[in-house]
Order: sequence, then C-alpha cells, then structure tokens
Amino acid sequence: MRAITFEEPGDPTVLRMGTVPDPVPGPGEVLLRVEATAVNRADLLQRRGLYPPPPGASHILGLEAVGKVAAIPAGTRTHLKVGDRVMCLVGGGAYAEWLAVPAANTMPVPEGLSVTRAAAIPEVFLTAYQGLVRLGGLTRSDVALVHSIASGVGTAAAQICRAIGATCIGTSRSAGRAHAADRFGTHALHVPDGAFAHAVREETNGHGADVILDLVGAKYLEENIQALARHGRIVLTGFVGGRRAELDMGSLLAVQGTILASSLRGRTTDEKAAIMRDFEAWAHPLFASGALEPVIHCVLPLSDAGSAHALLESDEVIGKVVLTVDQTV
Amino acid sequence: MRAITFEEPGDPTVLRMGTVPDPVPGPGEVLLRVEATAVNRADLLQRRGLYPPPPGASHILGLEAVGKVAAIPAGTRTHLKVGDRVMCLVGGGAYAEWLAVPAANTMPVPEGLSVTRAAAIPEVFLTAYQGLVRLGGLTRSDVALVHSIASGVGTAAAQICRAIGATCIGTSRSAGRAHAADRFGTHALHVPDGAFAHAVREETNGHGADVILDLVGAKYLEENIQALARHGRIVLTGFVGGRRAELDMGSLLAVQGTILASSLRGRTTDEKAAIMRDFEAWAHPLFASGALEPVIHCVLPLSDAGSAHALLESDEVIGKVVLTVDQTV
Repeated sequence: MRAITFEEPGDPTVLRMGTVPDPVPGPGEVLLRVEATAVNRADLLQRRGLYPPPPGASHILGLEAVGKVAAIPAGTRTHLKVGDRVMCLVGGGAYAEWLAVPAANTMPVPEGLSVTRAAAIPEVFLTAYQGLVRLGGLTRSDVALVHSIASGVGTAAAQICRAIGATCIGTSRSAGRAHAADRFGTHALHVPDGAFAHAVREETNGHGADVILDLVGAKYLEENIQALARHGRIVLTGFVGGRRAELDMGSLLAVQGTILASSLRGRTTDEKAAIMRDFEAWAHPLFASGALEPVIHCVLPLSDAGSAHALLESDEVIGKVVLTVDQTV
Repeated sequence: MRAITFEEPGDPTVLRMGTVPDPVPGPGEVLLRVEATAVNRADLLQRRGLYPPPPGASHILGLEAVGKVAAIPAGTRTHLKVGDRVMCLVGGGAYAEWLAVPAANTMPVPEGLSVTRAAAIPEVFLTAYQGLVRLGGLTRSDVALVHSIASGVGTAAAQICRAIGATCIGTSRSAGRAHAADRFGTHALHVPDGAFAHAVREETNGHGADVILDLVGAKYLEENIQALARHGRIVLTGFVGGRRAELDMGSLLAVQGTILASSLRGRTTDEKAAIMRDFEAWAHPLFASGALEPVIHCVLPLSDAGSAHALLESDEVIGKVVLTVDQTV
C-alpha cells in the first residue's frame, strides 16, 4: 500500500509517499480503509526522531483516522460490520491507505459529520475530555485554565468547558491566536512572556483555576501552581516548552494541589477503550446537535503531509490540519 | 492557664511553661480539658519560626490532644456531652491545659485505649489514612512505598497497609530504625544514600509502587518517580528533605503518574471533619480489636516539651512522643 515514510529523521521535507507492506490485523483488530487522518504534535516529534512509537505500534506516522471497516478477522469479536464508518485511535500507522486498529478503539462517526470533520475529532477531543473531565474532575462550578487555546486540544477543551457549563480561561503566546476560542465563550489571555497567574487570579476574584490543561510543560510549571485554586488539578499532557522544571512542593502543598501526567498514546487498548466509551456517550449527542464542533484549519491530501507538518510547526494553525487519503487505488 | 510558650524562635531550650489567657471557644467549638498531647515535626518547625500557624489558629504549639469536654457554648450544636473523652485535631494550642476545638474535629477514644495511647493517634493515623487511602486510593492489590517508616506516620501507614491487605515497603535512612515496622509485616529498605527505586522495582518484580507516602520531599522526588508503578500516585505530606526539586515531567508521563500534595493542618474544619468521620468508621473497630495500635516511643510530662522536641530532632525516635498534661490544677 501507499503510506507516508521517511528514511532519516529531519525537517518536514523528509516525508514522502512510499510503498510499504499492507498491515495485517491481529486478534481483536479490524482492517480499516483510511479516508482521512490528521496531524498531531507527536507526529512532528516522531518525524524528528524524538518520540519513538510505543512497543508493538506501527512505525508509520499517524495516531488517528476515519475510515471504513474493510475486513474483520475470524479472531475478532466485535459489533462492527464490514462497511461501517468509524473514527479511531492508534499507536501509529494512520498516514496510510490501510490501517489495522483494535475494534475497541473505534467510535462511530457522529450523525451528520463529514469524513474530514470527523477526522479532526479523536486525538484532540479525547485528550481534552480525558484531561479536563476524567482526570481533572471538571464540574460546572469550576474554572478551567487551558493553555495553547488555539491548538486542536485547546479549541476542543474550550467547547467541552462550555458544554459542561464551566468557566474557561485560555492562554496563547500569540495575540492573533488568543481570540481563537472567543466563539466558544472562552476569554483568552495573550501571554507572550508566559506570565499568566496574576491575570488568572484577577479574573477569578482570587479563586484561581480548579483544573489546568497544559501542553506546554516546564516553562509553565511555576505559573501553573501560582494560578491554581485550592484543591486544584494540573493535567500535563505535553511538553512543548520543555520537560524538566523546578517544582516547589511547598507552593503545591499550600493549595493542596495535584499534578497529573497523562497521554493517550501511552495507554493500553483497554484504557483507550474505556475513555472512548465514556466520551462517546457524552459527546456524540453534542456533536450531532452542534454543541461540539471540530475546528479545522485546513484540509490537505496525504501526499502533502510534509506541507501539513510545516504548517503545524509554524505555530500559526488554529485547530486541526486534516489529511485526506485518496480512494482511487 | 499554663501552656508551653517561647519568646523567640530557636532550639528546644526556648520552650518553657508559661501562663497565658484561657482559650474561649467560639461558635461550633467546645472547651477541652487537655489530658495529653503529642509532638509533631510541624511543632519543631513552628518553634524555629519556620511554620506560622494558619490564620485564626492559636499561636501556642500543639496540633492534637486527648481530653474531656469541659464546656459547650450555647452557639455550638453537637452530640458531645460535658465529660466525654475525645481525641482531636487543631490548628494549634494543644500544649496547654485547656483547648478550644471545633466539635466536628473530635473523635471518640477507641474502646479500651488509654489516654496516652489515644494521644498518639490523631495526626499520624489521619495523615497516613488520608494519604494512602483517601488520596492515594490504596487497595489490597496495591504496593505502597512508605518513607520514614519508623516515624509516627510511617508506623501508622505500615499498619493501615496491613489492615487493607496491601503490600507495604518501607524506607529508613537508619539501619537500626529500618526494622521498626517489621512487626506490622512491612519489609523496610535501609537507604542511607536516598537510592531506593531500583530496590523497589526488584522487590515488586518490576511493578513499582502504586502509592508512595512521602514526608521527605525534594531529596526523594526523582527516585519516587523512578519507583512509581504505572498510574502510580505520590502523596507529598512533608519536606524534611527540602521543598524544591527538579521535576522530570517526561518520566512522570511515562507512567501516567500523579503527584498530590496534602497536609492536615492546611485543611478547613469541614474538610478535617470529613476525613475524621471516614477514618473513625473504618479505624475504630480495628483499634478496638488490636489490628491497629498506636506506636509510642516515650511519654513525658508537658513541662518537658523541650526534651521531647530534642528527642524528635535526634532522629532516633520510633513512633510518637506523647506529652501528658498534669491534672492537678
């Protein structure tokens, strides 16, 4: 089959359309004909050689896809039927025409959503939902602080806060992108210097943030703790701003605070399945009603994966970059 | 009334028996005739001027006591009756003859326990229970790692693990004190150099610790994360080994780990009450049956508070140092 490959780690130009063996679905898996996938920051790191796939995962890039079930091996017990269209999470392999995916790590496409819109859902909405709701315990009376508010995860998080009725404060290093979530009722702070704790305290009459969803990491750790409400939870899901920082445990103790580190990719098939079942029950009616909506920056063909990576690395993207997979082969 | 006072912060010799105004119980409080109190590490820090009492708390030392209810103000609604003997948690004030304490922050003395044994319970058992069970979510299939195993909190934690059926591994910097919890089924590692992660992995066939109860802080942060099982929880309740350390968020993410910072003293009356009701229901039958037992290093009169502090600072204590309050006045 055709798939995006690279011989040596490097910049986006190392990506090219290549030919690789077709995937063979194992027990519990189904074979998907990929219709669309999408770009994640983890893909950029993997392309640079900085983020090896988890054990057993495909070495091909791509953590999510939308496609049609093409084959169900005899060893797989599932409610899925050949021809069903699903969204899925995988440990790798989605920048390709065919994909082997655990049946339990698929979700139906929400009613009324196109393939490209559905492809913008899995990673970012599941990451935001897992972080804010399942780990952070966000409720309607809480204040959420969401960094990188214009990112795919950020725009998903803003909508999840709105759907729950929680207050959401966003941050962005870019003045232009700070307003990306205005339409979801999120007021965003422009923080070119990474200082936001004082502003968060001011906006919340001193209360601070009950749940902080952070993809920045080291650069924001101290300010995150300063911005935290009593019993607040910091959910770390990425380290764009470095992975090592000094932790002041005394400051964390002063607010009886919690730091949770979580990623989707590092979770087992069963864990992902539990997150997906929970999310699906909560979110699918909201997608169908329009209360939740995928935010798409642009759609490119899979063959332009290099351009898509360059775009995401430019830090000018609002929401997701979706890649469509040619169906003519 | 008589109470332990100090004019300037300093070493244990600054403590002396003085005369201070009697406490006046406010709404929701009762007046207690103190029979015994006990020494905590927080007292040592407060005596050195390093740990100011929380807002509204007495400036007199002492975070726990056993005594008899002597008066119940009209504004206090409680099931307590004058003459009831109770154990209690306070924000300060227990190194004294009389103590004003929120009625909700008292517990009955477990059946069959003497006053001095009961005085060794509140701070250490509630800290260990809150950390291991309520925050750490410890279950019988879990491995707990308890640092400072010979301390009051450590010996309480070892017993709570045994009562739950969880595996407990302890650590101590002293070879002699490492065996303090042998009789509670806890195997303790002697870690003079603070390196324990490798040994914890070995003892658990690579699994690591599901819950870590840590009073050491900075010195142990990196090893704690290295010793953590997948989805493990580190509960920070003290910083004897410093409060600032480099946090490697990538290592924490690799195990999808959580760091929780928690203290009893920083909690509100309502929060303490909730912890105490939960603990009381679980623990009191276990104290009555002997499955849980207070570990007492020695009992001294309140007038020897200075010697008691010097003893705790010597790092040679196993369990609690209890102070009895003369009842002749």
